[in-house]
Amino acid sequence: MRNLKLTLAYDGTGFHGWQIQPNLPTVQGVVQEALEKLFNHSVTLTGSGRTDAGVHAQAQVANVETIRSIDTDAVLRGLNALLPSDIRVLQVEEVGLEFHSRRSASSKTYEYHVWRQHIVSPFYCRYVYAFPYAMNEAAIDEASRCFIGTHDFTSFCATASEVEDRVRIVFEAEWQRGGDEWIFRVRGNGFLQYMVRTIVGTLLYVGTGKLEPSEIPSIFEARDRRLAGPCVPARGLHLIRVDY
Amino acid sequence: MRNLKLTLAYDGTGFHGWQIQPNLPTVQGVVQEALEKLFNHSVTLTGSGRTDAGVHAQAQVANVETIRSIDTDAVLRGLNALLPSDIRVLQVEEVGLEFHSRRSASSKTYEYHVWRQHIVSPFYCRYVYAFPYAMNEAAIDEASRCFIGTHDFTSFCATASEVEDRVRIVFEAEWQRGGDEWIFRVRGNGFLQYMVRTIVGTLLYVGTGKLEPSEIPSIFEARDRRLAGPCVPARGLHLIRVDY
Repeated sequence: MRNLKLTLAYDGTGFHGWQIQPNLPTVQGVVQEALEKLFNHSVTLTGSGRTDAGVHAQAQVANVETIRSIDTDAVLRGLNALLPSDIRVLQVEEVGLEFHSRRSASSKTYEYHVWRQHIVSPFYCRYVYAFPYAMNEAAIDEASRCFIGTHDFTSFCATASEVEDRVRIVFEAEWQRGGDEWIFRVRGNGFLQYMVRTIVGTLLYVGTGKLEPSEIPSIFEARDRRLAGPCVPARGLHLIRVDY
Repeated sequence: MRNLKLTLAYDGTGFHGWQIQPNLPTVQGVVQEALEKLFNHSVTLTGSGRTDAGVHAQAQVANVETIRSIDTDAVLRGLNALLPSDIRVLQVEEVGLEFHSRRSASSKTYEYHVWRQHIVSPFYCRYVYAFPYAMNEAAIDEASRCFIGTHDFTSFCATASEVEDRVRIVFEAEWQRGGDEWIFRVRGNGFLQYMVRTIVGTLLYVGTGKLEPSEIPSIFEARDRRLAGPCVPARGLHLIRVDY
């Protein structure tokens, strides 16, 4: 048995997220099907984590076990020939059987792209969220720093989340502002569903004065999703890298 | 009567080109329909030229006459609210009745984007043509210069072209090479159907040694489409600007 680590890029626009769902196109489903064609045996593709419908990945990591001895370059070329152009395999590496793309991950980095103009270029519209309103940059930066560290993120994830342990560690959380695009970059040991998008929605509330940076600690403490800002659209969210 | 000049950006992937066709989505058709909703009278939208199916525009120019006195900012906002996100109106200006987006144009600039790697990012795949093969840059540059000037482009346009006068002036034709992307930028007083794409296909033939730069003048002279290189895919072609 061999264990292959795949690095994948995808435009999430056309998919109902990562996770396989019956009768809906999903990234895991489409890649798993291509792997099964290539290997001619059934496989389970394990991702580093789920991405939601419409979320993009510049470098998602997944692993798959196979009994075939096809070399990694041929797997790369074969998969890219079988996959639609909105999913690309960037790298295939043989790894030890103990490697698990989710459990072995030490951190993940996401970016959220905010467009600061009313008019969004048709070439960017699937990858950014347009929020052209005036914002207080210092307040946003101050609030962003409140997310760094070990916190219970119950107030900042999907209310339907069935995960019991909602404590996560955020290592970095900061904005890069360039021209018309503001990018929120966040690195953590793991992320709950809607967590990045709810943090960004909260930070946009802070930017427009609907919340004060000083209110963030008490929102954490309340463990009440209703106190945070809205969950911003999936299209601005990009999984940038997974570290091991 | 007022004459409005519109500057439009569009992702051509979802359209059967600029020109209205029955029962097919076209840029002219979709924009004209939005204008008619906004003005509540029938209109004719005149473009600076047709773009083919799959060709993109960063700044196509069109003009339209209306009897309405809606101010240009309201036309801009109203159109963008009515149009799909793959077409954006970047600017609306009131111009003299003598302004004609095609006849008044002094030059047009196109870019053709060539991707120099086998694997194309899902975020670029609709905007570039992947041509990862080794190429002789000096030969390409020498051949590119042969297209500058006044020429009969019969050998470098659609064979079905019904245009009688195939003489056009090319003011600039050069490659900008940056990392994995090579961009062919060409400015001329007008372009025949498939002209830019056939010039690029010919230049890629020169790059890979299938043609010599010294053969270009005789291909012009022969006025025979079969002697030039292939027409490369629409997705790499971008109308960048129209000057007046």
